[in-house]
Amino acid sequence: MFPKEYDVIVVGAGHAGSEAAAAAANLGSKTLLVTMNLQTIAQMSCNPAMGGIAKGQIVREIDAIGGYSGIVSDKTAIQFKMLNKSKGPAMWSPRVQSDRMRFAETWRLKLEQTPNLDFYQEMISGIIVENGRIIGVRTSLGLEIKGKSVVLTNGTFLNGLIHIGDKQFGGGRAGEKASTGITKDLIDLGFEAGRMKTGTPPRVDGRSLDFSKMVEQPGDEIPEKFSYSDETKPLKQQRSCHMSYTSLEVHDILREGFDRSPMFNGSIKSIGPRYCPSIEDKINRFADKDRHQLFVEPEGWDTVEYYINGFSTSLPEDIQFKALRQVAGFENVKFFRPGYAIEYDYFPPTQLRHTLETKLVSGLYFAGQINGTTGYEEAASQGLMAGINAHLKVHEKESFILQRNEAYIGVLIDDLITKGTEEPYRMFTSRAEYRTLLRQDNADFRLTPKSHAIGLAGDVRMRKMELKRNKSEAFVTFFKETSAAPEEINPIFSARESALVEQSDKMFKFFSRPEVTMEDMKNISSVKNYIEVNNLDTEMIEQAEIQVKYSGYIEKEKNNADKLDRLEGLKIPASFDYSKLKSLSYEAREKLTKIKPATISQASRISGVSPNDVSVLLVYMGR
Amino acid sequence: MFPKEYDVIVVGAGHAGSEAAAAAANLGSKTLLVTMNLQTIAQMSCNPAMGGIAKGQIVREIDAIGGYSGIVSDKTAIQFKMLNKSKGPAMWSPRVQSDRMRFAETWRLKLEQTPNLDFYQEMISGIIVENGRIIGVRTSLGLEIKGKSVVLTNGTFLNGLIHIGDKQFGGGRAGEKASTGITKDLIDLGFEAGRMKTGTPPRVDGRSLDFSKMVEQPGDEIPEKFSYSDETKPLKQQRSCHMSYTSLEVHDILREGFDRSPMFNGSIKSIGPRYCPSIEDKINRFADKDRHQLFVEPEGWDTVEYYINGFSTSLPEDIQFKALRQVAGFENVKFFRPGYAIEYDYFPPTQLRHTLETKLVSGLYFAGQINGTTGYEEAASQGLMAGINAHLKVHEKESFILQRNEAYIGVLIDDLITKGTEEPYRMFTSRAEYRTLLRQDNADFRLTPKSHAIGLAGDVRMRKMELKRNKSEAFVTFFKETSAAPEEINPIFSARESALVEQSDKMFKFFSRPEVTMEDMKNISSVKNYIEVNNLDTEMIEQAEIQVKYSGYIEKEKNNADKLDRLEGLKIPASFDYSKLKSLSYEAREKLTKIKPATISQASRISGVSPNDVSVLLVYMGR
Ligand SMILES: Cc1cc2nc3c(=O)[nH]c(=O)nc-3n(C[C@H](O)[C@H](O)[C@H](O)COP(=O)(O)OP(=O)(O)OC[C@H]3O[C@@H](n4cnc5c(N)ncnc54)[C@H](O)[C@@H]3O)c2cc1C
Ligand SMILES: Cc1cc2nc3c(=O)[nH]c(=O)nc-3n(C[C@H](O)[C@H](O)[C@H](O)COP(=O)(O)OP(=O)(O)OC[C@H]3O[C@@H](n4cnc5c(N)ncnc54)[C@H](O)[C@@H]3O)c2cc1C
Repeated sequence: MFPKEYDVIVVGAGHAGSEAAAAAANLGSKTLLVTMNLQTIAQMSCNPAMGGIAKGQIVREIDAIGGYSGIVSDKTAIQFKMLNKSKGPAMWSPRVQSDRMRFAETWRLKLEQTPNLDFYQEMISGIIVENGRIIGVRTSLGLEIKGKSVVLTNGTFLNGLIHIGDKQFGGGRAGEKASTGITKDLIDLGFEAGRMKTGTPPRVDGRSLDFSKMVEQPGDEIPEKFSYSDETKPLKQQRSCHMSYTSLEVHDILREGFDRSPMFNGSIKSIGPRYCPSIEDKINRFADKDRHQLFVEPEGWDTVEYYINGFSTSLPEDIQFKALRQVAGFENVKFFRPGYAIEYDYFPPTQLRHTLETKLVSGLYFAGQINGTTGYEEAASQGLMAGINAHLKVHEKESFILQRNEAYIGVLIDDLITKGTEEPYRMFTSRAEYRTLLRQDNADFRLTPKSHAIGLAGDVRMRKMELKRNKSEAFVTFFKETSAAPEEINPIFSARESALVEQSDKMFKFFSRPEVTMEDMKNISSVKNYIEVNNLDTEMIEQAEIQVKYSGYIEKEKNNADKLDRLEGLKIPASFDYSKLKSLSYEAREKLTKIKPATISQASRISGVSPNDVSVLLVYMGR
Repeated sequence: MFPKEYDVIVVGAGHAGSEAAAAAANLGSKTLLVTMNLQTIAQMSCNPAMGGIAKGQIVREIDAIGGYSGIVSDKTAIQFKMLNKSKGPAMWSPRVQSDRMRFAETWRLKLEQTPNLDFYQEMISGIIVENGRIIGVRTSLGLEIKGKSVVLTNGTFLNGLIHIGDKQFGGGRAGEKASTGITKDLIDLGFEAGRMKTGTPPRVDGRSLDFSKMVEQPGDEIPEKFSYSDETKPLKQQRSCHMSYTSLEVHDILREGFDRSPMFNGSIKSIGPRYCPSIEDKINRFADKDRHQLFVEPEGWDTVEYYINGFSTSLPEDIQFKALRQVAGFENVKFFRPGYAIEYDYFPPTQLRHTLETKLVSGLYFAGQINGTTGYEEAASQGLMAGINAHLKVHEKESFILQRNEAYIGVLIDDLITKGTEEPYRMFTSRAEYRTLLRQDNADFRLTPKSHAIGLAGDVRMRKMELKRNKSEAFVTFFKETSAAPEEINPIFSARESALVEQSDKMFKFFSRPEVTMEDMKNISSVKNYIEVNNLDTEMIEQAEIQVKYSGYIEKEKNNADKLDRLEGLKIPASFDYSKLKSLSYEAREKLTKIKPATISQASRISGVSPNDVSVLLVYMGR
């Protein structure tokens, strides 16, 4: 009933699975996407939004590589915001609210239009391994499907257990079944498994809210978008979110339910996402704070369903309800469904290579929440990388690995496989050593050429990126080579309360002053002229501005990154025997033996491996 | 967390539940719709189409009363067909193919826009009854929700068990959980329960089909629509279906799986829908037929998923697949998912009153598949009637009951509660004694005034119906009163090879000849003129044509129906003691005691009650 053998079988059609399937198929692999329910492809389990700080950069990276998350988000967006616009460009982070139903529908239609991609609806209950190599999967009805490689993206479904107050029931997401069988197979193969938890807030009826008591949160005045491609357009119309606050009263009511909270009464033992804490966690950990923000987010263009961001909880429903009724604007709130927590199996990601292939089973890849991460963007980017690498391995090509100085995706995967994670891993800008390099505006420069080289990013995408690069670079050169006279620049300086000059000088120098913006520079007729003659679009102009104004920082980070690159070049053979190196600390020897870093640089990032241990390694390797 | 008490609680948001909730809320009842998953409201479990023979009439009736099924179907239609257009107007049956995803989304948004209607996502696991009256429901998490009335519309979910070949697993629909708890509560209360089964065909990838080997089945050239209201417009663009055939080869392969068929090896004991048989049923029962038709129906505007109408099966997947590959156009077919059968609990509907209220528990209503019916239309219409009647009872108003000569809905409910059903009940035109009266073109005349009287059908709907009625009647009068001269009518007659006339006569007479159509009559200038001056639309013109050409039949059935009405008027007190009537046959006495018919007419339709028994009753009641 299936072809003799697929190149790539993707299990699960969440964000990770959808990207994995699209990438492998677009690269030319005969790909099968098997999922429990074809009506729930790329469901947003939690909030209806993509992006945000560090996560928005990831979506831009996915898009630059040729994944679909950015395009689907754009097409179904109801609001766009560039967060942190007042800070330096390394911090700018795009975020989109999407229409939840349309998001899933658009993903499904995108996948259906992907050649080489087959679909099948069923639960996969086991994997088939022969001599340390994956050879297929088994469905719950007993069918065997053969594949040269398998990407597992089971999300929160593996032995999923839902908690609300003191009640528990099996499920992978509210209203959906849990997935059983795979965990056991993996453990039998020698994998280490763990348990994590995450939670979600109640959904409420917008008709029962009084928005006049909340603060409106409109989208950006000039909305941008995720995708570098022309497949999407910025929004013309947007829907607003709203903001309200909890209060001491609300906290008191919530505390009434603590003895029935699965978090506090011991029935949930696994660890939840520290940075998406539940509301009970927040009032517990920050007992001195007398209020917490709540964002009230519409679930789509037309629906009356709202998502209460910031109120994730697994307290008993009656407590959730009583407490929320005390929040301004929620006096008459009606629930669509209560918040809940879910516990699920994950596999410590130190069991993976940089390609996301497991070390134990050749051809078997893990991506997404199954690796102990949290968040759609983290999942999607892993799926993309696993799908690409599964394809490349099957076709005996070199693997596709992004370095820490090349992409947040590189940081994410390197962190996971090197350090593992004890709690749901979420991306932050602070995790990246070179975040000035890893900006949302230049993900195309960083990644499109690499992806084009392996045949994923198409020619159109590549040419568009080159045009942007060439034109913005030329514009920077123009600023470097063209002078402005005092009578041209001084009006700008005086408006900006900046010291006036008496002599002409290169515009680059004037423009570099922090208080001067591109908008100011456009007042100089030669600048205005240049833009018109060269037909520069907003992205090119913005890019030039960043290159001029942050060139110092960028240069410095580039140098640091180059040093890293050199260490990165020092590969450690997979068979390296650390037990011979007596001068290594005991802990380092143990960790290195377990994790088997691929390079000196990766070794240096393992917690427990000291600079001293790194020197020992360098000496031994003849450096 | 819920209001003190709802007027109406509807359990389940399938076709029955969605109509029930909309009707009760629109009538002004404080209504709650609780369902297992708010993302699957009004899912089409089986084929993506509404209407068809006898079923299309029901959709028109639902629309005339003010339900939403017609509107939602129209808004999401991808193809429209008026079936049986070559037969008399009693047989004309509208049918719409819908976009499956949009259908569910549109229903959800329609419900969200309904005032008085709240939503809640959870499984209901029990009902709460006090002194023979319903007082609420219990959720699986233990919440109690109070209600003055409850409508159960659990569809195929009650203890649902899915079968494919020799595998079984619990579920209410592929990929969804079964519902547990309610059956036990009802049995404890004294209800009789039974088990039925139904099945569905595989879904396949349209990209793997060769449509050039099939026969195209386009929609109507001039598509119409279900709704009488102006909320929807006829389609401008349509998608085609296709047709192919099974063969002896296909049948042989299917037979290979018979020993693993749950239908034939005894693992399914319950009875399936005789008129939607599985393919294995068909080749078993009609062993002499060497082929069966298959309709290949797209699931939406953009999706590549197709539904294989006519190939419903619960044979093992490998057999389904091998057999389908032998069908012309399916040589390379790829499956999205296999067909399957499902067994579920139902409650013999003789336990209900004409209002769909249970006889055992006051305020408790059953609607849809739970009553042993099959089909979206049958479910939706019951939901509508149960929702209306729950509202009316709570507000102490007279119940809303349709007679057999007023609506297919009347036939449906009367059949169910009077005769019960041993196998999934589906509507046919042959079930209606007065089908010449119950046409799809006049459902508005028949039902909108009744619905307007109880406040459901709005004024706009009512006025539109009146205009159509008045204008079409006036047009008929015009034909009755206006003469045509031989030189006007003879050209028409000669074109139609009909005998010529020598004298003027009333147009009504000429027009009554079977071979003459309205199109012909429009060639007469006074007719053309009348239409223009009076601004008649197509519906009014068509209505006049039917009234002229079928007046004889219609008149005759009206007379018969009037007789029925008189019997219908003879009410039997609920407390009537049949044991006193010794002249009744034993069987009649037993059935009458059990079913407690409300009228002599209903008594006469109970199987086992002979005309002689009816005479006994009539004599006893003084007639
Ligand atoms: C209750 C809840 C709360 C959350 N809260 C947050 C939060 O606060 N912040 C945050 O950033 N993220 C949160 N998330 C996490 C976010 O939803 C995930 O990170 C993201 O969806 C993971 O994507 P994924 O592709 O790994 O898995 P998922 O999106 O979970 O998708 C898994 C897919 O695999 C399918 N599947 C599973 N097992 C099988 C099988 N055996 N056979 C076939 N198909 C299978 C499922 O049907 C599903 O399609 C939450 C998730 C849940 C459920
Ligand atoms: C596999 C299959 C094959 C079918 N084949 C045919 C066919 O060939 N021909 C045909 O005419 N019809 C067929 N049907 C039947 C058709 O789908 C039904 O007649 C119609 O959908 C019934 O509508 P309903 O509203 O009664 O129930 P459903 O559409 O089944 O809806 C039931 C709803 O109730 C909810 N629910 C159930 N229990 C609970 C609970 N305890 N708490 C909260 N919510 C609950 C469910 O989530 C669902 O939303 C088939 C159905 C299935 C599943």
